[in-house]
Amino acid sequence: MAKEYVVGVDIGAQSAKIGIVDKKGNILERAVISTKQKDYKKFVALLTKTIKELSKNVGLRNINGVGVGAPSSNYYTGDMVNASNVVWGKGKIIHLASEISKGLDGLKVTITNDANAAAIGEHKYGVAKQMKNFIEITLGTGVGSGIVIDGKLVYGSDGFAGELGHTCAIKNGRECGCGLKGCLETYCSATGVARTAYEMLSKSKSKSLLRGKKEITSKDVFDAAEKGDKVALKIFEFTGEVMGEKFADFIPFMAPDAIVLFGGLAKAQKYFMPSLLKAMNENVVFLWKDKVSVLISSLKESDAAILGASALAW
Amino acid sequence: MAKEYVVGVDIGAQSAKIGIVDKKGNILERAVISTKQKDYKKFVALLTKTIKELSKNVGLRNINGVGVGAPSSNYYTGDMVNASNVVWGKGKIIHLASEISKGLDGLKVTITNDANAAAIGEHKYGVAKQMKNFIEITLGTGVGSGIVIDGKLVYGSDGFAGELGHTCAIKNGRECGCGLKGCLETYCSATGVARTAYEMLSKSKSKSLLRGKKEITSKDVFDAAEKGDKVALKIFEFTGEVMGEKFADFIPFMAPDAIVLFGGLAKAQKYFMPSLLKAMNENVVFLWKDKVSVLISSLKESDAAILGASALAW
Repeated sequence: MAKEYVVGVDIGAQSAKIGIVDKKGNILERAVISTKQKDYKKFVALLTKTIKELSKNVGLRNINGVGVGAPSSNYYTGDMVNASNVVWGKGKIIHLASEISKGLDGLKVTITNDANAAAIGEHKYGVAKQMKNFIEITLGTGVGSGIVIDGKLVYGSDGFAGELGHTCAIKNGRECGCGLKGCLETYCSATGVARTAYEMLSKSKSKSLLRGKKEITSKDVFDAAEKGDKVALKIFEFTGEVMGEKFADFIPFMAPDAIVLFGGLAKAQKYFMPSLLKAMNENVVFLWKDKVSVLISSLKESDAAILGASALAW
Repeated sequence: MAKEYVVGVDIGAQSAKIGIVDKKGNILERAVISTKQKDYKKFVALLTKTIKELSKNVGLRNINGVGVGAPSSNYYTGDMVNASNVVWGKGKIIHLASEISKGLDGLKVTITNDANAAAIGEHKYGVAKQMKNFIEITLGTGVGSGIVIDGKLVYGSDGFAGELGHTCAIKNGRECGCGLKGCLETYCSATGVARTAYEMLSKSKSKSLLRGKKEITSKDVFDAAEKGDKVALKIFEFTGEVMGEKFADFIPFMAPDAIVLFGGLAKAQKYFMPSLLKAMNENVVFLWKDKVSVLISSLKESDAAILGASALAW
């Protein structure tokens, strides 16, 4: 019989979010730790220590298992493979599931791509609750994706399926951390938005609140857009266009009910959604013109990934 | 209890192939009729007449049902929707399954996209027999596709999933029958190869066996390539490049075991496969570099679609 609680862990480039979750999907305890540790061993030590502390109230023996969402991670093997956005992950294969399990006295640990975890969370608790076919796009430091077909997450032949952030948005476009050029991630992630800002500012002379800043973040672009800054508005318009054109290419693959946007950047939807929908519907084959919704995740960002990951552990 | 035989029908732009199939996948009787009829009623009349004739030996009462593969056709609704390559299909919704059924005294008729039927045939009898995840690309008058994930054909939310011929290969590229520009189909179908021939001949002055022909077909290009014609070889090299770049974009979606090529043009594989594999592996994200096979269908062209379609009728 399954025990009363599970642990959900969401590992991102900056931080890892941890929650103790009950059967109804309530997060009873939660903590955030920094992902930026010297090496994976330090990270795993901090993570397992934190999980043990959080479990004190419910008791570690009442935990059924740990579900982990992490970049470039493989459901079949339990490994994190060349996670270029994580400081200790680039170019390495880390047996993350088994390492975490070791630190928790052999508790069962199941791992998946962080974007897959978000999709599972959305499917179980979010706007995709009634949907059998949808794509969850995670707009974070990178662009991730989790694909649900016929009610099931798509893992593919090797467990890595659903890497839509590394499909080509613009031929011979921006250099991507993965080694390719023009990946969707280089345009539509938080860092992609910042890159667009640098490019647009250098190419024009228009006045902008963003001008003169030493380092521009997507948050800065959002704040400027809120103040009506024209360059900032153009940046989001372009971001939406790139997304829409690429979404038009995803739709014929699986005829989804919807594409769901998740992650920090989704908050800027009012600035990029009009151009996204226009580009998507202009570029998709007639069968799906004006037929596929683009929705914003209804889950709190911190919760979706924790809940999605935790669902793996039942 | 299921009866002893089924009928498989493969409707293409030029002709429809019909077979009476037993439980082991043997095609006992077969016929070919022209698709180019005045209207769909004439076509359905000829088709049902032919099926009745072919069934004489086994007896129509021993037929379990009819499976039909047809362009732009919907498994869920039984309709053919705006099949632009079929003379009586463009711009129309035809209730093809129910019309055929009416002509066969109410026999059960199941319909799917012709490319889906080919994928089902490949999965049941061909090179994809052991595969749980693959894409079947049909290189015919158009470019179709059938996608199998976790052993099941992907129909999507509306029954139309798997229209990879209408994803964008070259931005603002060639005009497509579907109304978009740059669709994969406009480059990698038989007609796409002919278009490449016209373009290359008009842009260069190189000698070629293809020069001076009134109308060039992909067969002409193949024949010229067989004789070492440099322009013909370049045409196939370019065709392979376009396919490879686009396949690199399909792979991250579902991490397939293989991509299987089916249809007349696949016969020219020795001319386009080197550039296809090079472009695919150069443009796919590192996770799948040199890991996904591109195979040629092991089924006779006429058989695969008939067998695939017939499998629907059990």
